[in-house]
Amino acid sequence: MPELRRDPVLGRWVIIATDRARRPADFQLEPPEAPPDFCPFCEGNESKTPPETLAFREEGTGPNTPGWQIRVVPNKYPVLGIEGEVGKKGHGIYDRMNGIGAHEVVIETPEHKTTFTHLDDDHVADIIRAWRMRVYDLQRDKRMVCAMIFKNVGRAAGATLDHTHTQIIVTPVVPRTVLQEMEGARKFFDYRGRCLFCDIVEQEVGEGRLVFEHGNFVAFCPYASRFPLETWIVPKQHESHFERLTPQDITEFAHVLKQTVLRIEGAIASGPYNFIVHSSPLNVGEVEHYHWHVEIIPRLTRVAGFEWGTGFYINPVPPESAAEYLRELKLPGAYSAEADTSAAKAGPAEGGSR
Amino acid sequence: MPELRRDPVLGRWVIIATDRARRPADFQLEPPEAPPDFCPFCEGNESKTPPETLAFREEGTGPNTPGWQIRVVPNKYPVLGIEGEVGKKGHGIYDRMNGIGAHEVVIETPEHKTTFTHLDDDHVADIIRAWRMRVYDLQRDKRMVCAMIFKNVGRAAGATLDHTHTQIIVTPVVPRTVLQEMEGARKFFDYRGRCLFCDIVEQEVGEGRLVFEHGNFVAFCPYASRFPLETWIVPKQHESHFERLTPQDITEFAHVLKQTVLRIEGAIASGPYNFIVHSSPLNVGEVEHYHWHVEIIPRLTRVAGFEWGTGFYINPVPPESAAEYLRELKLPGAYSAEADTSAAKAGPAEGGSR
Repeated sequence: MPELRRDPVLGRWVIIATDRARRPADFQLEPPEAPPDFCPFCEGNESKTPPETLAFREEGTGPNTPGWQIRVVPNKYPVLGIEGEVGKKGHGIYDRMNGIGAHEVVIETPEHKTTFTHLDDDHVADIIRAWRMRVYDLQRDKRMVCAMIFKNVGRAAGATLDHTHTQIIVTPVVPRTVLQEMEGARKFFDYRGRCLFCDIVEQEVGEGRLVFEHGNFVAFCPYASRFPLETWIVPKQHESHFERLTPQDITEFAHVLKQTVLRIEGAIASGPYNFIVHSSPLNVGEVEHYHWHVEIIPRLTRVAGFEWGTGFYINPVPPESAAEYLRELKLPGAYSAEADTSAAKAGPAEGGSR
Repeated sequence: MPELRRDPVLGRWVIIATDRARRPADFQLEPPEAPPDFCPFCEGNESKTPPETLAFREEGTGPNTPGWQIRVVPNKYPVLGIEGEVGKKGHGIYDRMNGIGAHEVVIETPEHKTTFTHLDDDHVADIIRAWRMRVYDLQRDKRMVCAMIFKNVGRAAGATLDHTHTQIIVTPVVPRTVLQEMEGARKFFDYRGRCLFCDIVEQEVGEGRLVFEHGNFVAFCPYASRFPLETWIVPKQHESHFERLTPQDITEFAHVLKQTVLRIEGAIASGPYNFIVHSSPLNVGEVEHYHWHVEIIPRLTRVAGFEWGTGFYINPVPPESAAEYLRELKLPGAYSAEADTSAAKAGPAEGGSR
């Protein structure tokens, strides 16, 4: 079973994946992995994954057989395991617990070559429904404390399989970054009596960092972007938990997510990126001070020693320039008309030419 | 002038490097950079860098001419500039200031092909003296708040020039990670009345994560290592500031730093790594609760979406296995005898075969 260990200085948790432990001697530089000939996520290969926990499939087809559009399975090599007790204990000055949690994969389409942005809006909305259903199901287990939904695209972003998918990891503790985001937002709320993210949305809609706006959602390059083209998607209406989005929210969020990722893919020539859904822990009720959102991080720059040591980032592209570029990008085919409307609405970038 | 912007959620500062701003369109995936034909750090090319701020050089040679062994110069493309006022101000809900600070390069040898670990111990000690002298000089300027000394080796670790060098960046605010390390250590001190790092040293010397021990310094793979082969070097005697190391400390630290990096280079086939000196801010006096140290991070694994979203790391190699491997590594030539003594002293790894 993997082990969770806590860094006593920063309170940072590390999953020591003893089950798939490699000897350091095996740990030479990773070669660029050739795409494997065999893909366990393709239709027809259902027996090569653990049994599905959810599938959207044609009527009359049985579980773990072809006929599905979206299929959710436990990760075959989970970083956290579902069986056992959390078993928190000390080891001298250190703290550890068993690596209990969930690690599932949402296989977004049976087609190997279809990318996320080639799926139509309704299909993307179904993927979002699948995330939501899995989070609701997993949170019935009281050991499950915090759900992270994320996508890695490209080797440099940590992806090991090309077939489009998202991952859901549920941890038995609140991860440090989530804790700190909630604390930061709480401090703002205590001082100002308003949700920080609601204020951010208010300010971003009127400034030059807006990328796309539709219904309840805005996409913008954040004021203190760490990375070139970093983009956040935030719901305008206050909501602390991702999984509580309404049916209309799902439709609108699907559209904005796909439009935004399309633009980023266009800007980085389909290079590597991650996106992560940031949401409140499962074991807290609705809160006034935190607001779920998505952070999309193109992986163009390398993180060097300075960033690791300080948590200080160096971004060579001002977010005003990045947002202007993403707004004005010509998208292929059907999307371009709508994109142009949005760009016009957003107005000229403030300081965009700096 | 670069601009410092603060993320309102996490309090994370970002340097928006407007001076060298690239358009997002220029920001396609970085090609593997071919080594340039011309190296500004080589002897004879002194005029191609800004004028030196410090050099260890042969008597009778003038500044910015050949004849030096170690040469410190301002970075030609600084991420923070030395001229101007800090100019803190708000922008709606956001906070910004001017990108004031220092960014210097310590060119460690005039020889292009000599790597850090090919330098003899005395030369490494001189490099450490150069770091220390620059920190003492820069902190006379009250705008200079926190000094980070770090090394990037290899493209994947963020290095852009091969000629061996370290960098010193001094920031006008305390970076978030430093603040959090100090807060974490302060909480431990408030509760237990002891320095957390002193306790860590105490526990590590007796466990299976020890890599090397000499004089006042221990090198070990930390209990909650984020990365395979991550190794920290910590002085045994309590000291909050790196720059206060004694003459004997310098000699011993040089030996331990070089031995440790040699082992890591051996383990990762001279692959990419970073090291960072973590030290207390310049504008606080000696503190009881924080303890300077070095963190060495081999860059073997990729950081994926989950890590970015959570601050939770997944490490496939238990630090006990990593430390055992580093202890037992056979080093070439003159170093091996001493290395073997140290390995024997450290004893068998606890749980090293898990």
